[in-house]
Amino acid sequence: MRIARFTTGDDPRYALVEGDPGSEQLVVLTGDPIYTPVQPTGEQVPLDDDRVRLLAPVIPRSKIIGVGRNYAAHAAEMGNDLPVAPLLFLKPNTSVIGPDDPIVLPPWTEHVDHEAELAVVIGKVTKDVAPEHALGQVFGFTVANDVTARDIQRTDDQWARAKGFDTSCPIGPWVVPGLDVDDLAVRARVNGEVRQDGRTSQLIFDVAYLISYISEVFTLLPGDVILTGTPAGVGPIVDRDIVECEIEDIGTLRNPVLRRS
Amino acid sequence: MRIARFTTGDDPRYALVEGDPGSEQLVVLTGDPIYTPVQPTGEQVPLDDDRVRLLAPVIPRSKIIGVGRNYAAHAAEMGNDLPVAPLLFLKPNTSVIGPDDPIVLPPWTEHVDHEAELAVVIGKVTKDVAPEHALGQVFGFTVANDVTARDIQRTDDQWARAKGFDTSCPIGPWVVPGLDVDDLAVRARVNGEVRQDGRTSQLIFDVAYLISYISEVFTLLPGDVILTGTPAGVGPIVDRDIVECEIEDIGTLRNPVLRRS
Repeated sequence: MRIARFTTGDDPRYALVEGDPGSEQLVVLTGDPIYTPVQPTGEQVPLDDDRVRLLAPVIPRSKIIGVGRNYAAHAAEMGNDLPVAPLLFLKPNTSVIGPDDPIVLPPWTEHVDHEAELAVVIGKVTKDVAPEHALGQVFGFTVANDVTARDIQRTDDQWARAKGFDTSCPIGPWVVPGLDVDDLAVRARVNGEVRQDGRTSQLIFDVAYLISYISEVFTLLPGDVILTGTPAGVGPIVDRDIVECEIEDIGTLRNPVLRRS
Repeated sequence: MRIARFTTGDDPRYALVEGDPGSEQLVVLTGDPIYTPVQPTGEQVPLDDDRVRLLAPVIPRSKIIGVGRNYAAHAAEMGNDLPVAPLLFLKPNTSVIGPDDPIVLPPWTEHVDHEAELAVVIGKVTKDVAPEHALGQVFGFTVANDVTARDIQRTDDQWARAKGFDTSCPIGPWVVPGLDVDDLAVRARVNGEVRQDGRTSQLIFDVAYLISYISEVFTLLPGDVILTGTPAGVGPIVDRDIVECEIEDIGTLRNPVLRRS
C-alpha cells in the first residue's frame, strides 16, 4: 500500500496510489489515514492528471528528528568517528517540502549537500517504547532528503541553521506502511548521475533501536518523522540541478534546486 | 496587558489578567488572541479560584528557537568565547510545560541546570524581516526556563537531547504584549535563593536583531517562541527543588522539580 497526500488545486486530500507505473490511480480517502481508518470515497484521479500535484505526505505537528553519522562509510567520508549512541538533531516542520517543490539555496551558504535517507513516519503517541515494540508505533516509511548547508554546519556550533532552513527537508513521494526496511537500497542521483548508493542494512543503529532511543528523550506524536541517516556519497547541489532520492520498494523523491538571488 | 491560558477542568481558554497582586481576575476571552481580536466573553474567574490552573500561555505549532551564549558573563562561566553571530538551536513543542508543572529529570542525565530567559512569542508569519520592522511581528513576551542537561550537552555533539527532552521548556505565567524589553531584570531562584540576576540590556544580540537573523533561516509562524539566552549564574536543580524564573514587568514562572525513579 502507498499513501499519498495531494491537491488538485483545492485543500489537500489523501489517497491510495494503485496500479502499475505510468498508469497509477489516486484512490481518494475520506481523511488523514494517520488519524482515521483507510476509507475510499469512491473518487479516483489519474496520477498523471495535469491538475494533480503530490504534496509532502505528512507535515509533522511537532518535529523531525535527524540521526547523524548512522552509516559508517558516511561518518568516514566526513572525517568523524563512529558514534557510540545515536547523534540526534532537530529539523522544524517549516523545513518540509514535497515532491517537485524547489530546494531553495539560502544566500548565507555557498555549499549545500544532498543526503538521501529512509524516513520513518510515527503513527501513535510514543514514549519510552522498548525496541521490540517500536515498529508497532510506525505509520509507514517514506523517502527524505536531509539537505545540509555543509559550510554552515562546520562553522556554526549547532546544526539548527545548516539543517533546519526552509526547504531543507523534502519528503515523499508517498508513505508505505508495513514495509520490511532491513535491507533496502538508498540512492541519490543529481542530474541523473548516481551519487549515493547504500543499503539500510548498513545502518549502525537500526530503525527499532532509533525509535526506542528517541522515545526516551521526546514524546513522539503521530506524524512526527525520524530521518535515519545517510549513506556515503553526499555531495553538493547547485542552482538548476535536479536531485532524486530513491529507496527500493518506496519510490523516488525528485526536487529541483534554486539559488535565491 | 497580560494574557493567560488556563483551564478550570475543561478545554483551555484565554483570559486577560486584571487587578492587583493577590486579587487578580481572569477576564475570559472568546478565542486565542494570537489569531482573533481580544474580545471578552463577559465571564470573570478569580485567579486564586481552586479550579483555575494556568497553562503554558502558548504551544508553538512549529518550533522554539533557542539562542546560546547571548550574555557575555554566561558565555564566560561556561568557558566559551563570545559568538560572532547568534548561536541557534531548536527545542520541540513537546518540551513545553506551564506554570507549576513539574520539570521531570530524565534517568539518562545526572546534571540538569536552570536557565532563566526572556521569551518572545511571534504573532505573524515572518520571513526575512529587517531588524527595524522585527518588533512589529511580536505578539508578546513571557518568561521561559531553558532547562538543560549539562552533562549530556557536553557529551552529545548536538544539543537536541540535552535541551529538547520532555518538560525542558517551562513557559509562563502569561504573555505581555507591547512591553519595552530593552532593560528588564532576569532572575532565577532555587528554593528561594537567588541564582541568576541579570538584565536584558546585557544581551549580546538584541531581540530585534535575533528575530531578523532567525527569519533569514526559518519561516516563523504565529505562536513560535524565541528564547533569547540566559544570564550568568546557571546551576543545578535536583529532585524536590522549586525553581522560579522572574522577569521584571512580566512575572514569575514557578516549577517544581521531580526525579523520575
